[in-house]
Amino acid sequence: MTIGGISVHCVDVGHGRVATGLRVRVARLDGTVLCEGRVGAKGLLEHPALMGDGIIPGGYEVIFDVGAFYRAQGTALPSPAFLEEVPYRFHIADVAQHYHLPFKFTAWGFSLFRGGA
Amino acid sequence: MTIGGISVHCVDVGHGRVATGLRVRVARLDGTVLCEGRVGAKGLLEHPALMGDGIIPGGYEVIFDVGAFYRAQGTALPSPAFLEEVPYRFHIADVAQHYHLPFKFTAWGFSLFRGGA
Amino acid sequence: MTIGGISVHCVDVGHGRVATGLRVRVARLDGTVLCEGRVGAKGLLEHPALMGDGIIPGGYEVIFDVGAFYRAQGTALPSPAFLEEVPYRFHIADVAQHYHLPFKFTAWGFSLFRGGA
Amino acid sequence: MTIGGISVHCVDVGHGRVATGLRVRVARLDGTVLCEGRVGAKGLLEHPALMGDGIIPGGYEVIFDVGAFYRAQGTALPSPAFLEEVPYRFHIADVAQHYHLPFKFTAWGFSLFRGGA
Repeated sequence: MTIGGISVHCVDVGHGRVATGLRVRVARLDGTVLCEGRVGAKGLLEHPALMGDGIIPGGYEVIFDVGAFYRAQGTALPSPAFLEEVPYRFHIADVAQHYHLPFKFTAWGFSLFRGGA
Repeated sequence: MTIGGISVHCVDVGHGRVATGLRVRVARLDGTVLCEGRVGAKGLLEHPALMGDGIIPGGYEVIFDVGAFYRAQGTALPSPAFLEEVPYRFHIADVAQHYHLPFKFTAWGFSLFRGGA
Repeated sequence: MTIGGISVHCVDVGHGRVATGLRVRVARLDGTVLCEGRVGAKGLLEHPALMGDGIIPGGYEVIFDVGAFYRAQGTALPSPAFLEEVPYRFHIADVAQHYHLPFKFTAWGFSLFRGGA
Repeated sequence: MTIGGISVHCVDVGHGRVATGLRVRVARLDGTVLCEGRVGAKGLLEHPALMGDGIIPGGYEVIFDVGAFYRAQGTALPSPAFLEEVPYRFHIADVAQHYHLPFKFTAWGFSLFRGGA
């Protein structure tokens, strides 16, 4: 059961698979970095700092390193790539809610809709 | 751990919440209905027929009753609504894989990208 | 200036380019086929039947032949592909409005939100 | 005929209409602001600085003021809203291409896929 916290789920929708290896960084808008790491085999960035207790009200920014992800796969891209570091900025007013953030992306765009309370 | 099967997850992205109450029907393209029901509190259509054993290779169609969902909420819509019954058609070649199907919708459109193996 | 009518605009968002060559069919839900053809260099299916005068109130279905599109490009896909013929069903209540339908797709999903009146 | 340049097209997909009045700012990643203004009746931010000649290779950021847009419409939102200023960061390698950027959004998410060359 999830109470509070942020879950970041990343899918490479150009290939229909979770984005294992994608580098992701989560920070507050005041600059405090909560965590940085790579997406695991289930498509999630799993880190204790994203659990309920680590989350306070305020603004957050997630950075997805999309350009490096596709270069590592050998995808032909312009230089620089259309998408390099992709920021996603949002605000948490109620820390009792869970924020599920599904990031569906290709080398040329993405969709980010909050996945429900 | 999920092995095989289909999971249908529905979010009303106009309001940022799971689409509890949305009527969904899942059928094979040969007309066999697997299940029909309403999305629960977690945004999922949960039914034994969608588990791994019930799924054989072939074509499937999920019908989401989007028009009725918004009318039940009192949303002002044209008559008929732009979206009434929304079909989603896909094929399963490998029944050992799990098919997670996140349906993100408003009264005016939707996004459906396979959510990873 | 566009008054009435339907415009179908198709982009392969896995590659960031318009889907020239994609086969598209537009029909009424009563079975009447309005037109069938291939997307041109601008990403549009251009056909007189989609102009304002040809459109009456009622239900429509657009079929996008996504599986054949990717096979023709040599993309590795399951057999059958996850997406073969993708239907998009919608209703027109007010024929004085223009319906711009941007279809953003990969071999594994798509987004279809009405693009504004 | 469009050669080069950036076009920003904004649709409130929760309501199926173009986002007239949405405040948008376009800047280079070095901080230079190209333009700032409101989306017009066609859903576009129209400004000479976005035409082909004003665009040089490099990184760009578009800021969409989604929170203010929905507050001005009287939409019930948390405080702060889930989405306040939404950044979109991308890079232009080839100034001879046109960059069509369709921003499809609700108060709870958005989709941004390059709309074709």
